[in-house]
Amino acid sequence: MFNSCSIVEIPLAIKKYCPLIHCITNYVTANDCANILVAAGASPCMVDEIQTAEETARVSAAVNLNLGTLRADVLEVMLVAARLANKVGAPVTLDPVGAGFSTFRNHAAERILRQTKISAIRGNMSELKSLSAGVGSSRGVDVAPEDAINETNYREKGSFLRILSRRLGTIVVASGAIDLITDGKTLFGVHNGTPVMGQISGGGCMLTALVCSWLAANRLNGSRFSDLETCAAAVAAYDVCGEIAADKTARRGGGIGSFRVELLDAVNTTSIQFLQKAAKVETIE
Amino acid sequence: MFNSCSIVEIPLAIKKYCPLIHCITNYVTANDCANILVAAGASPCMVDEIQTAEETARVSAAVNLNLGTLRADVLEVMLVAARLANKVGAPVTLDPVGAGFSTFRNHAAERILRQTKISAIRGNMSELKSLSAGVGSSRGVDVAPEDAINETNYREKGSFLRILSRRLGTIVVASGAIDLITDGKTLFGVHNGTPVMGQISGGGCMLTALVCSWLAANRLNGSRFSDLETCAAAVAAYDVCGEIAADKTARRGGGIGSFRVELLDAVNTTSIQFLQKAAKVETIE
Amino acid sequence: MFNSCSIVEIPLAIKKYCPLIHCITNYVTANDCANILVAAGASPCMVDEIQTAEETARVSAAVNLNLGTLRADVLEVMLVAARLANKVGAPVTLDPVGAGFSTFRNHAAERILRQTKISAIRGNMSELKSLSAGVGSSRGVDVAPEDAINETNYREKGSFLRILSRRLGTIVVASGAIDLITDGKTLFGVHNGTPVMGQISGGGCMLTALVCSWLAANRLNGSRFSDLETCAAAVAAYDVCGEIAADKTARRGGGIGSFRVELLDAVNTTSIQFLQKAAKVETIE
Repeated sequence: MFNSCSIVEIPLAIKKYCPLIHCITNYVTANDCANILVAAGASPCMVDEIQTAEETARVSAAVNLNLGTLRADVLEVMLVAARLANKVGAPVTLDPVGAGFSTFRNHAAERILRQTKISAIRGNMSELKSLSAGVGSSRGVDVAPEDAINETNYREKGSFLRILSRRLGTIVVASGAIDLITDGKTLFGVHNGTPVMGQISGGGCMLTALVCSWLAANRLNGSRFSDLETCAAAVAAYDVCGEIAADKTARRGGGIGSFRVELLDAVNTTSIQFLQKAAKVETIE
Repeated sequence: MFNSCSIVEIPLAIKKYCPLIHCITNYVTANDCANILVAAGASPCMVDEIQTAEETARVSAAVNLNLGTLRADVLEVMLVAARLANKVGAPVTLDPVGAGFSTFRNHAAERILRQTKISAIRGNMSELKSLSAGVGSSRGVDVAPEDAINETNYREKGSFLRILSRRLGTIVVASGAIDLITDGKTLFGVHNGTPVMGQISGGGCMLTALVCSWLAANRLNGSRFSDLETCAAAVAAYDVCGEIAADKTARRGGGIGSFRVELLDAVNTTSIQFLQKAAKVETIE
Repeated sequence: MFNSCSIVEIPLAIKKYCPLIHCITNYVTANDCANILVAAGASPCMVDEIQTAEETARVSAAVNLNLGTLRADVLEVMLVAARLANKVGAPVTLDPVGAGFSTFRNHAAERILRQTKISAIRGNMSELKSLSAGVGSSRGVDVAPEDAINETNYREKGSFLRILSRRLGTIVVASGAIDLITDGKTLFGVHNGTPVMGQISGGGCMLTALVCSWLAANRLNGSRFSDLETCAAAVAAYDVCGEIAADKTARRGGGIGSFRVELLDAVNTTSIQFLQKAAKVETIE
């Protein structure tokens, strides 16, 4: 059973501890990730130069790795930072942007998963499938239509993700119409969100950054919740914020420009009471 | 004569095919370009690492090259990606940001134009002039005042651009108070837009990215329109969106912060009927 | 005594001369810096490739160096650009992002200060302290709580900054609840602003870019004001814009997403009369 108190206590812990989140990330959505972390109450620090990265990883509450616009030299920095985080028990999250179509990024994700301990990996189904079966169906950074999670197939996709989670040895967070979160045993399905979240540039990157900050805050707060619960709570909270943003955007006749602003606002200002009440997390047998 | 049906059919084709646009672009406006493509219904993929770029170019519907913040190693990636696109007949667009003042970028643009087949090049007059005559009058990334296209000089500037288009062997799209589009024979002038579009950071970069997605969608849709017509249609549609955004911004007393949001909204939500009706494309003798 | 005419005349000079500001800056907030400069009426040019940087520095009215996401090769470009600016007497500003926690950036800042003439350095107290005493208390890019300037300690912090300014041989601009600006002799305190300005990603980077454009415009306008006065005026104007943005954001129930939009709008549209009237600059004995 999902404990929805996590949706109340962890956001408070983020604001209390203001965890420093070391992001090694792409230049397309770096600004989005920095701002979503600030909006949540965390402190982002984008660093991918080796010496600075070592220093940053040492003082960070968590490390967030994002493979968008990855270069070979930055991959090495990611490995160093993740290992340093592993040493002190700080969470490390991985967003395998483009692993579904790029051999280089696919191998990079595999190497990170093999050589370091990742707390959670978050991607779309095409990216995640490719980590199981090699570069596959994904076209660009979007999910392939046949891979998309929906109301009809989410239990079946969940079974696949359970196996993947065990094989990769990490919590898997799969974004879709229903978001699926599993540690290989328990499987949560989040029935919140709005399609536009999967459409804006950076929608996934921001979620992974947020998940990282939730894991960090929960750890700093005495690990009152499991990492799995924390991931599901972060996804549900972000999804509810997306619903609020979509609603406000629709009311003013806006498009994705307004939605992006409203999403930042929602993450920044939505009350934890509302988040908890609106979250719909299913425990899937 | 300009066929304004292009302004209706191509946006529909973008939404239908959701073309993957491989962007090799600068880190200043990468986020803007990604979001404007998403707003139009295309799928952006920013990749400049060599191995990933090859894989991306292979599956992309088009490649968009932008010389802002260009580094020497990325230029080589651009050449590889453009050649791969050329092989499969996918459109390639070029935005020679800063070619007007930087010898390095000027030579980069010339090399790209010489070694690959570019479908369309879009820039301001200073950037375009410099490709004809070497680094010249441009100051930074903005057009030099004496180069600016206006109501008085646009026919004359158009004559110059016709010659330039023939010499460069590509469609030339010149941004100004009147936007000029030519393939060396036919010359279109777009009498839409608003000065603020030339002022915001990324205004030009976003247009080039959009032009790229229009060329891709038209190709996927059976090339019902010529590349020239497609470019003119894309410019007119973007300009009309700029007018809408400027209007909404003015009504709420906003500035360029609001304008940027409204522009994304307008590209995302304006009906094709409105776009077609508002577009003013002149065929210049 | 602070001459508040600077808050009227310099913004006019920015609009008149539209100074080209060469920014060598990080990829996280490059877009923010470009847009805030455009909003003020300046012309940003982000260039960090060596050959282009030399060309840019030669035609620029000022150079702005920002150490966020600094790489070793870009540091060399910064030194070249700053020396070229020094030769022609163009202002150079420095934002030592992360100097408080990163040895690499701390040494980079020291090297820049030793080998070139910096007109003004702007940072938070942790970053500035570290330039005096080595890498210290700062955690990430935010100020350490014990370093923060407030109503109680600002005179004392000002005394420290006076000494630091003399030692570094440059104007020091320290951001905090009260912003402090000193050339080692005169000390100004700006009693404007809003806490959210220190919270959004890029809030400091944008200020340093603005300070750079104000210094450039004042120089182009016959140096009617001292560099110190110009810095204080820029800080006060930016802070007033922040107050306006915070006010508008609060009225519509927004968060940092809205605030970022409103801040750009305010810098773009606030009348100089209002800026001058609202600015509260104290001359501290």
